Amino acid sequence: MLSSIKRFLIGRPLKSNELGEQKLTKAKALAILSSDALSSVAYGPEQILIVLITVGAAAFWYSIPIAVGVLVLLAALILSYRQIIFAYPHGGGAYVVSKQNLGKYPGLIAGGSLLVDYILTVAVSVSAGTDAITSAFPSLHPYNVLIAVLFVCFITTLNLRGVTESASILAYPVYLFVLALFIMIGVGLFHIVTGQVPEGLHTPIGTPVAGISLFLLLRAFASGSSALTGVEAISNAIPNFKDPAPNNAAKTLAAMGILLACLFTGIVFLAYYYGISPMPDVTVVSQIAETTFGRNVMYFFVQGTTALILILAANTGYSAFPLLAVNLAKDKFIPRMFTVRGDRLGYSNGIIILGVLSILLIMAFEGKTEHLIPLYAVGVFIPFTLSQTGMIVKWNREKPPGWLPKLIINSTGALISLIVTVMFFLTKFPQVWPVLVFLPLIIYLFHRIRKHYEAVADQLRLSTCEPSIPIDGNVIILPVAGITHVVENSLNYAKTLSAHQIIAVYVAFEREDEAVFEEKWAKWQPDVRLVTLYSPYRSIIQPLVKFIDTVQRKASESNFKVTVIIPQFIPRKGWHNILHNQSGLLIRTNLLYRRNVVVTTVPFHLKK
Amino acid sequence: MLSSIKRFLIGRPLKSNELGEQKLTKAKALAILSSDALSSVAYGPEQILIVLITVGAAAFWYSIPIAVGVLVLLAALILSYRQIIFAYPHGGGAYVVSKQNLGKYPGLIAGGSLLVDYILTVAVSVSAGTDAITSAFPSLHPYNVLIAVLFVCFITTLNLRGVTESASILAYPVYLFVLALFIMIGVGLFHIVTGQVPEGLHTPIGTPVAGISLFLLLRAFASGSSALTGVEAISNAIPNFKDPAPNNAAKTLAAMGILLACLFTGIVFLAYYYGISPMPDVTVVSQIAETTFGRNVMYFFVQGTTALILILAANTGYSAFPLLAVNLAKDKFIPRMFTVRGDRLGYSNGIIILGVLSILLIMAFEGKTEHLIPLYAVGVFIPFTLSQTGMIVKWNREKPPGWLPKLIINSTGALISLIVTVMFFLTKFPQVWPVLVFLPLIIYLFHRIRKHYEAVADQLRLSTCEPSIPIDGNVIILPVAGITHVVENSLNYAKTLSAHQIIAVYVAFEREDEAVFEEKWAKWQPDVRLVTLYSPYRSIIQPLVKFIDTVQRKASESNFKVTVIIPQFIPRKGWHNILHNQSGLLIRTNLLYRRNVVVTTVPFHLKK
Repeated sequence: MLSSIKRFLIGRPLKSNELGEQKLTKAKALAILSSDALSSVAYGPEQILIVLITVGAAAFWYSIPIAVGVLVLLAALILSYRQIIFAYPHGGGAYVVSKQNLGKYPGLIAGGSLLVDYILTVAVSVSAGTDAITSAFPSLHPYNVLIAVLFVCFITTLNLRGVTESASILAYPVYLFVLALFIMIGVGLFHIVTGQVPEGLHTPIGTPVAGISLFLLLRAFASGSSALTGVEAISNAIPNFKDPAPNNAAKTLAAMGILLACLFTGIVFLAYYYGISPMPDVTVVSQIAETTFGRNVMYFFVQGTTALILILAANTGYSAFPLLAVNLAKDKFIPRMFTVRGDRLGYSNGIIILGVLSILLIMAFEGKTEHLIPLYAVGVFIPFTLSQTGMIVKWNREKPPGWLPKLIINSTGALISLIVTVMFFLTKFPQVWPVLVFLPLIIYLFHRIRKHYEAVADQLRLSTCEPSIPIDGNVIILPVAGITHVVENSLNYAKTLSAHQIIAVYVAFEREDEAVFEEKWAKWQPDVRLVTLYSPYRSIIQPLVKFIDTVQRKASESNFKVTVIIPQFIPRKGWHNILHNQSGLLIRTNLLYRRNVVVTTVPFHLKK
Repeated sequence: MLSSIKRFLIGRPLKSNELGEQKLTKAKALAILSSDALSSVAYGPEQILIVLITVGAAAFWYSIPIAVGVLVLLAALILSYRQIIFAYPHGGGAYVVSKQNLGKYPGLIAGGSLLVDYILTVAVSVSAGTDAITSAFPSLHPYNVLIAVLFVCFITTLNLRGVTESASILAYPVYLFVLALFIMIGVGLFHIVTGQVPEGLHTPIGTPVAGISLFLLLRAFASGSSALTGVEAISNAIPNFKDPAPNNAAKTLAAMGILLACLFTGIVFLAYYYGISPMPDVTVVSQIAETTFGRNVMYFFVQGTTALILILAANTGYSAFPLLAVNLAKDKFIPRMFTVRGDRLGYSNGIIILGVLSILLIMAFEGKTEHLIPLYAVGVFIPFTLSQTGMIVKWNREKPPGWLPKLIINSTGALISLIVTVMFFLTKFPQVWPVLVFLPLIIYLFHRIRKHYEAVADQLRLSTCEPSIPIDGNVIILPVAGITHVVENSLNYAKTLSAHQIIAVYVAFEREDEAVFEEKWAKWQPDVRLVTLYSPYRSIIQPLVKFIDTVQRKASESNFKVTVIIPQFIPRKGWHNILHNQSGLLIRTNLLYRRNVVVTTVPFHLKK
């Protein structure tokens, strides 16, 4: 039943050697890996205006130089990540680059903040997309959380099916969104060039504005650079590309950079030229679309594809999180299970964990995750800064041919990223302080996990361990609850093992019971030794464990091992299990975890 | 840790022979077993007036004859249950009486409806009590559900400590409530006798009222008889009494009946004489208290003890539910675990299940359980009717000396109970129909559980089973994941068992891996046979289970048993478990439940 539902949802299992077919072409990779970055143009320009309006609409012309600044940052990031792609063709992005060039802890800071960030990406994007949908259909508003959770489940399932298949479905909305925005920008520019837009809607560039300050401008710049979240996704996902992976990834990255730059510039410029002010209920993109087209079908096309791409931006998290998790798990900082490929060759544990955690986040914040955006942006710029600093160190150390321009590119990127990060902490501390709490906690956890794995490896290595003590024999203990077919079954099994001793143990709750049972047993199995234990507190486990301790002490003197045989009912139907006291399970858990005895479970399959 | 919290909450474990000390004296039994019945006078009289007001305040004088009817019913019930106590001194109440005299299914109807009813008792009483408290402190209103849940947890803990100890705490509020009401009734009557209350507040008895009908009067009577819920509790709990249990129980029952009759009569009379109308926000008892005392300390004393006793009424459920569950479990209609006495000699499983289910009910209804009251009342009168009908059958069949008056008492009781039950279905069908759905479901479940237990007993009985086939030897299969200390450890153990064959099995995910491992193994353990399995789908369990099936087919031909040895890491700290793939656990569960093989778990305790 369960397994056929699984087959229906995620498809037949794939063989390990089918992995090549799951790799991404450039066109699909662009769709699947850049929906996060591209979707941020839907809110990035607006963030700039929201800061500028605090000193008045006259300051809006500053959005142009600020946008130039963001474009410079974008160019620096794209060029820098291009260099990272060729320098680290096996992927890993910020985590690998920081670790290899700056050391373990900077690497963990980058990896830890990205790991959390991808969860935030999923929660924030899906909530934002759901908001867009329920704004269009207000009657759905009470079901916001439910709809968001269903979207996460849907995206999780797609990703469990595998990257290529999900790319096919996800490619259309991304390209439609790009198309819609290009049409909007094109028509808008056409209107301006042909003089259909009045000149007086905006203040000319350079108009002096009272109250403007460098702090405010930097703050607007930091806000605007939230449009750049997601550009690192491609460099993390190089192993997903078709061969030659680095070349294809670099080309995809360049294409994404150009698209992002065009869309961002176009939207900032139109907003400035149209003189648009941010409003609480209507987004800037929506206002531009309305001014350009009026409320016709094109307007709804722009709005619809925007809503869709916001939801799909979550998918970037699904591509990047499992790959980052593999890198961290290979270095033993997170559980080994993240390195296991699932039925469809995706890293299914990472995908499922990401889905579950983001659903929990959505439910905890009741779908109102917007104020997590600054937290999310700062979580992106910390690894940006670290990875580019890492590249600076690399060029300085290795000095390959033509290293100077590379060094300059990365230095520029590192400096601007650092400024943005610092600006976030200075101007939005009330929203970003949790980073300072969670990041150290996560890194401590990474550290503890690594230590545990190292300790285990030490204990498993044959060469370093003391030679294991050979065992000279076995004492077998068989707890019995009565004289039944189950006991006979287990006893028959025990007798086939070359045990030097079989001891049946009976726990009695009443004194009278002891003698009665001993007599019965003597008649039934005169050659098997029976020990009865009286339990005044009606516990089976306590006297049993005490008895086993005594036996074990004696056994270990003569180098014997103690084996406890536990009969286990296996009913034909699952629900029947609650009708039987699960003492077998309890005894097994107790003995395995608390004592060093071998536990043998002899099943007794009920036939009706 | 956990166990010391448990010790703190419920106290040290008690020995089985300390059971006598846990029995109840009459005074404590009255408090503990009649809080439900006594608390119902807080809402019973009001229910009558709510029905009568539909034809006008002039009809209020009918509350006097209706109250007489309720008193007759009460007398019949008390006398009838007195006879049941002596006829069935081991307790069991409606379930036992119906089962023995009317047959299995009437017994199950009585038992099933009481079982559900006790859960309703707890949920309804605690919610009502919480409402009373949060009405006094409106700022607590948003925490209604939380407060109710905490009360349930508190009462559950008290009951896990044991009946005597909880009786000591619970006795005070019950007696304070009785005292408060007696003072109120006494002062009220004194005022009336001394002429301080004006005569004209009420219409004289016998005044003709337009619109009154027999149907309406019967409905008012049915509503008023909800004041009698809980009178059966004592007859269910006879084993909890000090010896001579039946005599003590009968005396306690009589005392309860007299108290209940006095309080009920007093409240109905004062309400009538004061001309009190039911109001949505203020209870009838509150109005009487206010008219009698004004808003002084006595008023708050009445209100406070009323709130308290409503919460404590839940405790009746805790006394009766576990005992009824024991009776049903002994007859194999519900899981055997309900017959096990816990550390403090209470039937802790019943107590915990009752607590959990009523918390779920409170949460599902968000603390608004008032409209469950009719459901709850009908669930009481069905077993009332059945048990008294059972007694009629018993007297008719056995005809002991003086049986005729006994027969008349029970016949009267049975008839009135039947009328009340029918009236509930006729006049309150929209609220009581769920009984008709749930009761058959529960009885079907009882039936299925009984069938399962009977089938198991058949299969366990040595005499009736075919003699078990002796086993001639063992094939031991040892799945290995590498050449480590863990494998060495398990292999050493396997070698001590007199196996005719040990097969190590290695599952490889890559073809190249197979040859490499085979070579390594041949060097390390040349005398142990190794089988490598290639798993293109990266599953360990599937190829392993397939291989085990093949081995088992061959083994069973020569009457051999297959044993699978599974090494299990036991980390030093619990949370370390998630760092290890739980393949051991998965394999064990799969093999035990799906295949008939013995599973031996060899622990490997990690030392750091």
